[in-house]
Amino acid sequence: MTEFSTAERDAMDRALDLAAQGLGSTSPNPSVGAVILAADGTVAGEGRTAPVGGPHAEVVALAAAGERARGGTAVVTLEPCDHTGRTGPCTRALIAAGVARVVYAVADPNPLAAGGAETLRAEGVEVAAGLGEDRAVQVSRYWRTAVRRGRPYVIWKYAATLDGRSAAADGTSKWITSERARADVHALRGEMDAIIAGIGTVLADDPALTVRVPGLDRSPLRVVVDAAGRTPVGARVRQGDVPTWIATAAEVGAGADGRVDLDKLLAALYGRGVRAALIEGGPTLAGAFLAAGLVDEVVGYLAPKVLGEGLMASGPAGVSTISAAIDLEHVDVTRIGPDLRITAVPRRRS
Amino acid sequence: MTEFSTAERDAMDRALDLAAQGLGSTSPNPSVGAVILAADGTVAGEGRTAPVGGPHAEVVALAAAGERARGGTAVVTLEPCDHTGRTGPCTRALIAAGVARVVYAVADPNPLAAGGAETLRAEGVEVAAGLGEDRAVQVSRYWRTAVRRGRPYVIWKYAATLDGRSAAADGTSKWITSERARADVHALRGEMDAIIAGIGTVLADDPALTVRVPGLDRSPLRVVVDAAGRTPVGARVRQGDVPTWIATAAEVGAGADGRVDLDKLLAALYGRGVRAALIEGGPTLAGAFLAAGLVDEVVGYLAPKVLGEGLMASGPAGVSTISAAIDLEHVDVTRIGPDLRITAVPRRRS
Repeated sequence: MTEFSTAERDAMDRALDLAAQGLGSTSPNPSVGAVILAADGTVAGEGRTAPVGGPHAEVVALAAAGERARGGTAVVTLEPCDHTGRTGPCTRALIAAGVARVVYAVADPNPLAAGGAETLRAEGVEVAAGLGEDRAVQVSRYWRTAVRRGRPYVIWKYAATLDGRSAAADGTSKWITSERARADVHALRGEMDAIIAGIGTVLADDPALTVRVPGLDRSPLRVVVDAAGRTPVGARVRQGDVPTWIATAAEVGAGADGRVDLDKLLAALYGRGVRAALIEGGPTLAGAFLAAGLVDEVVGYLAPKVLGEGLMASGPAGVSTISAAIDLEHVDVTRIGPDLRITAVPRRRS
Repeated sequence: MTEFSTAERDAMDRALDLAAQGLGSTSPNPSVGAVILAADGTVAGEGRTAPVGGPHAEVVALAAAGERARGGTAVVTLEPCDHTGRTGPCTRALIAAGVARVVYAVADPNPLAAGGAETLRAEGVEVAAGLGEDRAVQVSRYWRTAVRRGRPYVIWKYAATLDGRSAAADGTSKWITSERARADVHALRGEMDAIIAGIGTVLADDPALTVRVPGLDRSPLRVVVDAAGRTPVGARVRQGDVPTWIATAAEVGAGADGRVDLDKLLAALYGRGVRAALIEGGPTLAGAFLAAGLVDEVVGYLAPKVLGEGLMASGPAGVSTISAAIDLEHVDVTRIGPDLRITAVPRRRS
């Protein structure tokens, strides 16, 4: 087992914080964090991936460290890339700066960018991997899963009462959950590259699908899955300077049922650089994504309320009998104000 | 603040365990636990309330302690009763045994039985209250609430998927939750005096409504809310040697809608000695109890599954708009195997 110093452990914690902060701003690149320790173990510089076209985390951190990087250690959340894309390879930058040791959390799953550890070792740099791996996998799961599957990581988010209602019998749903839970949703939206809603939700609720997080100036692409192009000209989702894509069957392609083909929709989004997408409703769209096995994570906000009747968060997902239920695993429960946030991952079917 | 010795604290923990074990076997009496400490602080005897007609906890514990009770301390979960019912007052038994000190957790809310502390003090016994009060209130909440309201404490229990479905589209529901969650339900049933189901559930699922807990030989009264008396002769709920009451509108009384009057139903059950009752289904009955404000506690078992469609656990509860939702408080979440058990208490409306 490789040994890591306390300074390296602290640096990795910080680098992972930086990586988490960058979620939503770096796609199609991963959000990476880097901390440069000087030869004496003190922090010389830090950085995170700049928006696309800008420098990677290592380069930002090396620039901040300057000459203090020489003989020091670079602590990075992802294996430094070894390829030239819009920017040069990070391995070259680390070698040129005279870094003596590189510690990273997880390997790069992207075959184009991998091989960084080997290149560094060949140049005499000491390389150690695995520090902070669990959290790094968690923080980078959108991007890692997207790269592996060749489509965005898809989160289905819903809010419901304890008895599973997303709106009352008269259609009202403002607000089922608390202000704190809604703020948490905005933070989640802020990590996304796209927010997807169905035409039914747009027609019924006229949502803006924007992100309202103090200090955050980015907003993900808004996508309406709208087979027949019925999104009203005056819909809030079309307003503001946040980009919106009305994804029609004519543009994307349709399945046998005439609905927008979701595989093609996700492929198109991936092509646009989207690595993480949030399904925000309604039940029909959620059911269609679930039925297609295209949901990577479920995030449910459950309010301590009972309605007894009203609309449901989920819709037909191709499951007609109990033994065919979609099983979830890795269930996490967190209290958000008075509400519960339950996250889980659909079990992959073989 | 009264001081309690370590021996007294330990004794109260044990007494509360005994009280919890007795739940479901003592109604209409409360389930009480008692531990007698000898003058030297060692445990001389313990006991819990025997089934109705038998001795109270103090008397059982005093019998076990014998002469060692003299000059000792009685640690009891409830203020010792001061009235003669089927058995003599516990205050008299404690005084006769020569107990020097009595420690109890909570006062008796029953005006008929209260006054025990005063009687003991008048006889020169030292009395201290409040040790273990929070847990005692929790353990005795069925009985305390029932006595205060003059009707059984009512728990609505349901099982559902994360998206709120209690059965799949084809009606199958075996099993939504895990074996461990179902065992937990049986333990809960074992604490009850009655299990109530609606005729819809009896016709659809033909449940036995019995308790299956290893080593437990009691089973609560089975009640079918069956306005028109449609419970089939061969229904499982009629089988076995557990008593069953088919509560028809003719026998109980009906509301304007022709359904069984739930206030009258609960009054009748209270008259039969029922202090805790479990609503086991289905949605119509649950909705009716919720609408009438007759649910004291909600216990939901949520399975990490998604169905997308199917039956709901709850039915119309007189709530048509979001602002009128029934608010719950004191939300507790416990993992039971892969499932979540969420308990909460409907907020009293003024």
